[in-house]
Amino acid sequence: MRPLGILGGGQLARMLALRASALGIPVAILSESKTDPAAQVSSLWRKGSLKSQKDLLEFLRACSVVTFESEFLDANLLAVLSQRTQTPIYPHPHHMALLQDRWTQKNLLNEMGLLTSPFIRVDNVEDAQDAYLEFDGQLVFKKRRFGYDGNGTFVVKSVKTFEQLISAFEKASGDAGLIAERFVPFEREIAIMIGRSVNGQTVSLPFVESFQENSRCLWVNGPLEFNARSKKLESRLINFLKQIGYVGMMGVELFETKSGELIVNELAPRVHNSGHYSMDALNEDQFGLHLKSVLGMAIEKPRLLAPGFAMYNLLGQTERTPQWKLPADVKLHWYGKSENRLSRKMGHFNVLAEARKKNVPARADALARAKTARADFKL
Amino acid sequence: MRPLGILGGGQLARMLALRASALGIPVAILSESKTDPAAQVSSLWRKGSLKSQKDLLEFLRACSVVTFESEFLDANLLAVLSQRTQTPIYPHPHHMALLQDRWTQKNLLNEMGLLTSPFIRVDNVEDAQDAYLEFDGQLVFKKRRFGYDGNGTFVVKSVKTFEQLISAFEKASGDAGLIAERFVPFEREIAIMIGRSVNGQTVSLPFVESFQENSRCLWVNGPLEFNARSKKLESRLINFLKQIGYVGMMGVELFETKSGELIVNELAPRVHNSGHYSMDALNEDQFGLHLKSVLGMAIEKPRLLAPGFAMYNLLGQTERTPQWKLPADVKLHWYGKSENRLSRKMGHFNVLAEARKKNVPARADALARAKTARADFKL
Repeated sequence: MRPLGILGGGQLARMLALRASALGIPVAILSESKTDPAAQVSSLWRKGSLKSQKDLLEFLRACSVVTFESEFLDANLLAVLSQRTQTPIYPHPHHMALLQDRWTQKNLLNEMGLLTSPFIRVDNVEDAQDAYLEFDGQLVFKKRRFGYDGNGTFVVKSVKTFEQLISAFEKASGDAGLIAERFVPFEREIAIMIGRSVNGQTVSLPFVESFQENSRCLWVNGPLEFNARSKKLESRLINFLKQIGYVGMMGVELFETKSGELIVNELAPRVHNSGHYSMDALNEDQFGLHLKSVLGMAIEKPRLLAPGFAMYNLLGQTERTPQWKLPADVKLHWYGKSENRLSRKMGHFNVLAEARKKNVPARADALARAKTARADFKL
Repeated sequence: MRPLGILGGGQLARMLALRASALGIPVAILSESKTDPAAQVSSLWRKGSLKSQKDLLEFLRACSVVTFESEFLDANLLAVLSQRTQTPIYPHPHHMALLQDRWTQKNLLNEMGLLTSPFIRVDNVEDAQDAYLEFDGQLVFKKRRFGYDGNGTFVVKSVKTFEQLISAFEKASGDAGLIAERFVPFEREIAIMIGRSVNGQTVSLPFVESFQENSRCLWVNGPLEFNARSKKLESRLINFLKQIGYVGMMGVELFETKSGELIVNELAPRVHNSGHYSMDALNEDQFGLHLKSVLGMAIEKPRLLAPGFAMYNLLGQTERTPQWKLPADVKLHWYGKSENRLSRKMGHFNVLAEARKKNVPARADALARAKTARADFKL
C-alpha cells in the first residue's frame, strides 16, 4: 500500500501524521529538513522542496493520495502533476488556487451568498484612494496571497492624509497585489471547522471564540451557543462545500458584530489552529476528519467529551530552550521545533471543563484554567 | 536533550512513542527491524537486539531514561548497564526480575497481603504429584517465565491418572521451571491499571471486565462499579507500589469469584492491553501516565470522558491483508504490523457510550456497539 503523502513538515503535518499512525495509515512527509516537526514522527520522510517540480513529481509517484498543510503552494503545478501521476491531491489544487487569493476567495464567498465585509481590488495608488473614499477611511489593506497570522494585513483606519495613505499602500503592496476591505468593528472573532469527505459526507464542528493578540491566535474557547444566525450560517457553509465539491477540512474565521451579525473573514483550505481543541474535546479531531475525508472513509459530526473547552497557543517569547512543569489535567501538544523564537508557535494545550461544576459556566471554567496553566510554561 | 529510550518495537512501544511525540518528548526505539510498529513513528529508531550487551549499552548511552514494553528481558544485565551508564531504567530492573518470574511474583504478592490462588513450586514430577494432591486435582501448571496470553499456562483439572499428570507436566515443563496453582472457578476476569511516578505520586484507573477467548484478551468493558472489596484492593495495590518503590504503570489481572472475592492472577510491570481503553475513555491514558511517571512529571487520577466504554482487540484470523470500513464513532488504533497472522494482535478499537442514553446501561451500550463494529473489520 502506497502511503498518504503530506506536503510540508510543520506542526499541522505532524499532527496529521500522528493521527494517521493511530489509524494505521502509512504517512510520507515531504519537507526540507529531517528535524522538521513532522519528519520526526514518520519513517517515510523524504527530503525535498515544495517548490521543486522534480521533488513533487517523485513524491506524488510514491503516494496513493496527497494532502498539504499550507495553501500557499503552486496550485497550477500541483494540478498538472496530480493529473500526470494520477495521484489525487485533496483539497483539490483548483480550490487551493481559488482560496489562496483573497480576491478570488471573497468573490466566491459572495457568489455563494456568504456575507463578507465589502472589498475592492487594489492594484495601484488610484485604487487605494478609491477604497479610502468608498469605505469612509475605515479600511484594511490585505495582501492577496501569502498572508498569515496578521502578516500581510494593514489596518489604515487612522490615516488622515493622502500622503499617509500612499505610504500605507506602499508598505502593504507586494507582488501578490492587494485588496481593501471596509474595517469591521467586531465584538469578537469566532471560528468554525467544516469539512466534506470525497464520499460526499459533510461535518461541522462547534462554533468557538478565537482570541487574537498582536494578530496571532492566543486562545480558543467553546462551544459557543447555537442560535438562529449561527445555524443559518452553518448550513450555508456546508452548502458551499457541497456546491464547489470541496474535499477535506476547512477553517472558517468570522467576525461577530455588536448586533450579532456573522461576517466571514477568511477561509483556510486545510486543518487550522482554531480547530486544535478538537484533539481532546471531541470524540474525533480535525486531523482524523481530514484524513478520513481525503481517503473516503465515513465521517460524522463529532460529539463533545466535555461541556466546555479551551485551547491555548504556546508562542515563543525568547530564544531559550522552553521549560515547563506540566499540570496533570492539561493536554499538551508540543511540536518539537528545534528552536524557540519570538512569536513562534511552539505548541498548544487543551483544557476540558469538568462536568457538573457548580456556579461556573463550563466554557469560562475551561478558559480560566487554561490561563492559569499558561503560567507553568516558560518560553 | 537526549531522548527517552524504549526497548522494543512492538505496539506498546508504538503507542508510547506516539503519546510521547504529543508531549514533545523525543523518543528513540531499539528494535530489530525498521518496519517494526514503533520504528515507523520515530526518526530516532536504532537497529539492535535486546539480547545484545553491546546494542543495549550503546542505546542506554544515547538516552536520558529508558523504559521497555516487555518484562522478559535480561534484568540483571539491564541493572548492570544502567549503573554503568548512569541512565535510569524504569520500571527498575530489580522489579522486572521479581515480576518476570511467577514464583517470586506470587511470593511478593502474598508478603504484601495481596490475595492470590494458593501455589507451589514445581521442579520435578514429584512436585507435580504433590501439587495434584494438595489442590485436589483442580490445578493449573504455569511456566515461571515468558508466559503471555495463555502461552505457558496448562489447565490440568481434568487429569484422571498419574500417567496423564506426568504427560501434562512434561508438556508444561520448560527451562524456566513451573508453578502449580489451585484452579480458580472465577465468575469473570477483571483488571486494573495502577502506577507510581518517580516523584512518588500514584494513580489507579477504573476496574474493568476483561474477557478472554482462547486465553487471549478479546475485549475490555468498564468502568465497573466500585464496592468495598474493590476499594480495599485498590488501596492495597497502591500501597504495594509504594512499599516496593515501583516506577511506571503496572497492569493487574484479577479473578472475581462467585462470592465476589478478588484474587490477583498476575502483574505486568508495564503498560498493558487491558488499559488500552484509556486512550479514548480517559482524559489521560496509560501511555501518558507511564511516560510522565518515568520522567517525574505530575500525574493524577484521570477522569472518565464517557459513562461507559469498551475496547475490542483486532486479532488476526488469516494471512490476508486486513480490510475494514471504519465506523465513524469508533476510535481505531492500528499497529502497522507488516503481516497479518492467526491470533496476532493487529490493532484495537475503543467505543464510548453516549451520555444520557435512556434505558441502556452505559457500559452495556458501549460493549454492544463494539461487538457490532467488530463485524466491519476483515482480518
